[in-house]
Amino acid sequence: MSTIESRLAALGLALPGPLLMPAGVKLPFQFVHVRGTRVFVSGHGPQNLDGSLAAPLGKVGRELTPEQGYQVARVVALSVLGSLKRALGELDRVAQWNRVFGMVNSAPGFNRQPAVINGFSDLILEVFGAQVGAHARSAVGMAELPFDIPVEVEAELDLVG
Amino acid sequence: MSTIESRLAALGLALPGPLLMPAGVKLPFQFVHVRGTRVFVSGHGPQNLDGSLAAPLGKVGRELTPEQGYQVARVVALSVLGSLKRALGELDRVAQWNRVFGMVNSAPGFNRQPAVINGFSDLILEVFGAQVGAHARSAVGMAELPFDIPVEVEAELDLVG
Amino acid sequence: MSTIESRLAALGLALPGPLLMPAGVKLPFQFVHVRGTRVFVSGHGPQNLDGSLAAPLGKVGRELTPEQGYQVARVVALSVLGSLKRALGELDRVAQWNRVFGMVNSAPGFNRQPAVINGFSDLILEVFGAQVGAHARSAVGMAELPFDIPVEVEAELDLVG
Repeated sequence: MSTIESRLAALGLALPGPLLMPAGVKLPFQFVHVRGTRVFVSGHGPQNLDGSLAAPLGKVGRELTPEQGYQVARVVALSVLGSLKRALGELDRVAQWNRVFGMVNSAPGFNRQPAVINGFSDLILEVFGAQVGAHARSAVGMAELPFDIPVEVEAELDLVG
Repeated sequence: MSTIESRLAALGLALPGPLLMPAGVKLPFQFVHVRGTRVFVSGHGPQNLDGSLAAPLGKVGRELTPEQGYQVARVVALSVLGSLKRALGELDRVAQWNRVFGMVNSAPGFNRQPAVINGFSDLILEVFGAQVGAHARSAVGMAELPFDIPVEVEAELDLVG
Repeated sequence: MSTIESRLAALGLALPGPLLMPAGVKLPFQFVHVRGTRVFVSGHGPQNLDGSLAAPLGKVGRELTPEQGYQVARVVALSVLGSLKRALGELDRVAQWNRVFGMVNSAPGFNRQPAVINGFSDLILEVFGAQVGAHARSAVGMAELPFDIPVEVEAELDLVG
């Protein structure tokens, strides 16, 4: 098993399958787009292990508490790692996380987006370590997100050359 | 005529002129910023052929139906191609689409942003084909967009080296 | 003194210290992430010289006028330059601004985001000049921003090779 996958296993973390979309939804793009050593990660939401979108849905600060939002952001990180594993074959090919753009479906007046997206950053740092996992980040409040997911994260990273 | 422009012509698609802004509006940035082989595309809205912002304006889910939003996203793709043509001289210089960030001016409760931004992705894929046109994407709901445009798209791509 | 810092001094502009966060806030990411010659700048808000978040807080179009929003965006540019100075040692290492993503905490119906983010673009162009300062940009309306800051800007730039 690869180093990163051993770490995931040691942490008791499993990666979800490919996104199962509601009927009739068409997504004509790549969840992970690789260009040379650059990797562009599409916006991901929380998935169950079978790939379907995971509950709870709704806005943080209304349907979800910030603590629930944090947990959702961790699950979003696992969705991203699932897509990366399928696209790259091997998560050890990741040389560096560069950019994390964390979007929180925010109820009016909810402005603790960083506390939510920390769920994503913390998991990436636990799994990839402080050096490979280090990244720039924004954590901001969206009016709406697709299918009413509470958190969506887009990212960019680099592969080993 | 270049390959891409032949394809646009065959599809009956024409590109708008440079953005004509309302009086007094100052935009001190580049619609397309080229850095080596990297191309950063600023957020674009829908334009008429004369370059002015195209109706309908407003929020998808309120002033616009999702189907109208899809059509606007196609028009936004043409705005982007117009800017790319002016900046690059030749659309055939595009080697690869990498990232599409699709922003939908969303009425409260509207959460079908992917169905809207598909208008952009579909047009790019029709014109550039499945390989050059392939991209990572996010499609998300904004509280407001400039001048009340319904859709804005930012992108990044690569030129032929 | 470096060229850029001389220009800042000539313009009477001082850079704030590292971000002082409210108690209990944890931000497990880098304000500036350097990868080779690429620089990823995290979302920054307005800071006082001591690093604390600067008033006024709230939404442009409600608590703040557009003109106040413009001034906040200038202050955000100084926050970013402060982080860049600490990360790079020397602001003259910046070869090129590439991308500016300007997010405005927007009251319902406020859609003059470009006029606000011009505060950021104008300062960058004043300090770095028309060539190094040139950038692609989006200026969009967010539902909420962390700690109720009125403006947040994320960016990407290149270092001298």
